[in-house]
Amino acid sequence: MSSGSPPSVPARVAGERYRALTREPGHRSIVVIDQRRLPHTHVLLTIDDAEVAAEAIRSMVVRGAPLIGAVGAYGLALALDRDASDGALSAAHAMLDATRPTAVNLRWALDRVRALVAALPVGARADAAWQEADAIYAEDVAINAALGGHGLELLRELAAAGHDPLNVMTHCNAGALATCGFGTATAPLFLAHALGIPLHVWVSETRPRMQGANLTAWELRQHGIPHTLVVDSASGLLMRRGDVDVVIVGADRVAANGDVCNKIGTYDKALAARDNDVPLWVALPSPTIDWTLDTGDRIPIEARAADEVLRIAGRADDGSAARVAIATEGTAAMNFAFDVTPARLVSRYITERGVANDARSLHDLHRGGAQ
Amino acid sequence: MSSGSPPSVPARVAGERYRALTREPGHRSIVVIDQRRLPHTHVLLTIDDAEVAAEAIRSMVVRGAPLIGAVGAYGLALALDRDASDGALSAAHAMLDATRPTAVNLRWALDRVRALVAALPVGARADAAWQEADAIYAEDVAINAALGGHGLELLRELAAAGHDPLNVMTHCNAGALATCGFGTATAPLFLAHALGIPLHVWVSETRPRMQGANLTAWELRQHGIPHTLVVDSASGLLMRRGDVDVVIVGADRVAANGDVCNKIGTYDKALAARDNDVPLWVALPSPTIDWTLDTGDRIPIEARAADEVLRIAGRADDGSAARVAIATEGTAAMNFAFDVTPARLVSRYITERGVANDARSLHDLHRGGAQ
Repeated sequence: MSSGSPPSVPARVAGERYRALTREPGHRSIVVIDQRRLPHTHVLLTIDDAEVAAEAIRSMVVRGAPLIGAVGAYGLALALDRDASDGALSAAHAMLDATRPTAVNLRWALDRVRALVAALPVGARADAAWQEADAIYAEDVAINAALGGHGLELLRELAAAGHDPLNVMTHCNAGALATCGFGTATAPLFLAHALGIPLHVWVSETRPRMQGANLTAWELRQHGIPHTLVVDSASGLLMRRGDVDVVIVGADRVAANGDVCNKIGTYDKALAARDNDVPLWVALPSPTIDWTLDTGDRIPIEARAADEVLRIAGRADDGSAARVAIATEGTAAMNFAFDVTPARLVSRYITERGVANDARSLHDLHRGGAQ
Repeated sequence: MSSGSPPSVPARVAGERYRALTREPGHRSIVVIDQRRLPHTHVLLTIDDAEVAAEAIRSMVVRGAPLIGAVGAYGLALALDRDASDGALSAAHAMLDATRPTAVNLRWALDRVRALVAALPVGARADAAWQEADAIYAEDVAINAALGGHGLELLRELAAAGHDPLNVMTHCNAGALATCGFGTATAPLFLAHALGIPLHVWVSETRPRMQGANLTAWELRQHGIPHTLVVDSASGLLMRRGDVDVVIVGADRVAANGDVCNKIGTYDKALAARDNDVPLWVALPSPTIDWTLDTGDRIPIEARAADEVLRIAGRADDGSAARVAIATEGTAAMNFAFDVTPARLVSRYITERGVANDARSLHDLHRGGAQ
């Protein structure tokens, strides 16, 4: 696949296809949706500088493990446009890598571009970096499609078991906005809905930044998939009531033992799922697997600003953007962005290569001889 | 104990004692803090009419199982001031009882006042109702103190095991604002802190209405107890990190089998506690136990307005009261206010009569012969 012409994806805004990240063919810049403004305002930002790319990742203009991997790769290409020396390559890699510590896709994408261009003459590096970033982008689109197909088969089986509609719970956003294509955890949902399998999605709002309420609910609405927003802590009750048939989440990093690092609250949902015999499926592109870590307990958990807990952004009654403080000024808050779900709580790993039931079969699928 | 002179409680606002509910001696009205406005504004409301009392409970001006029991009892007294006939008694009981379905204390208090006054001549009913409401109030203050003492002993044991500080996690608000005294789940904390036991409290914000952020954090600050606010779904991670020594929660209704109905999210915390060998203590006054229900699955779960999920109230940057919408207009939301934690996940029940390890010993403590 080449840049600028990825395969068609079903994501839409008001009937139009949209993409979290686009590159106009021939331009040395990328355009992203400012996800901090969704769902209330649809603003596009042009990124034409490595430092702007870094800031976009840091401030969560773009988020989602696969998407920040691609933006990081383009950020490195932008840096090399300005200065392709060894020193500049190293400095730009370090700057971009430091923006967010938990998702491994960012590091993976940066390492991949750097490894390719470091072997080239300085004058050939920038073009090669753009090409490699385009390849990462196109591969992610393809990964989403393949992963969605494997997840679709699992959903079909569940629907055939008599769930009508199939009640799916998601957390955070692992949709089109988290990737270059149409998502990881939501990819099977979009496909199932397009094929007429009746679905209803419980959208967990995902405090503190509300990616469930702001992004996932918005994406599902674009597709016309019935959904209901709930607070994060409603998951236990809903599962106990029998209102959830399956929980599907994405991942920011998966350790070699199958432990899953994902948005804070995933572990709580995994526990509720296990206590109520609800399957938990983790959808992950293979670059999300960190084979160098033997256990999820070694994954660095990003602690973000307390202000994200203390103030909530949204739309005021008059339609303007606003934020409200929820506690007394000066209240201390802790804001870990991710948690780790032990492998024992995961029912299925869905990747672009197929479905694995445990860490061993995940390993065989990706590193075994028979690929 | 008589009305107007309950024992001293340690709750304070800016150095002054405060109370969620007060009755000026001799007045036929009560004064409550409007808890919807906390922590940003401290507004007192006078309730001098049964319908105002009902609306205060319904709209959560007052909340917390013990407190709404007392306000309900006073509401019935106010109704009888106007009309003490059998028909009026029955109508007022029904109106007040319908305000909130889950907590059993409200029904318990209303039944208690009605049973007492129904046997009296119409002309004597109102005074008797006021007296009985005062008694319910005073008993709740005494219950808080006794329950706090029993919880304190448990905290002492835990502190003696080498936790310094003792890291306690709470959910919602089971503090002075939920009761007539100084709280249920927080009562042991206030006592322990006053005695110099080093504490740190993880305050779970408690979406959708943010009682943790708005009320519990505010109460802890009044007492100078170190605390940190976290989103509800951080509980699993914090316990997995070993940062929580005990989880203490209140209860809105406890079934005869020991199942605990409490604020939505309690069950999720109970699961995280069990998975990480963290004890879960439930603090409950005995009127919270519903001996007529064999299982918690039969407790009616209140579903409140979707708007509480979709819009968040707080303080704007300019200091004014404001609210923000977190999802696209028209998004469907479900808002169950409570969940049920199975008895198997509860480590200790703390009541005013002592500490029980399971439903059987809870029964023996309250209905056994050997008091």
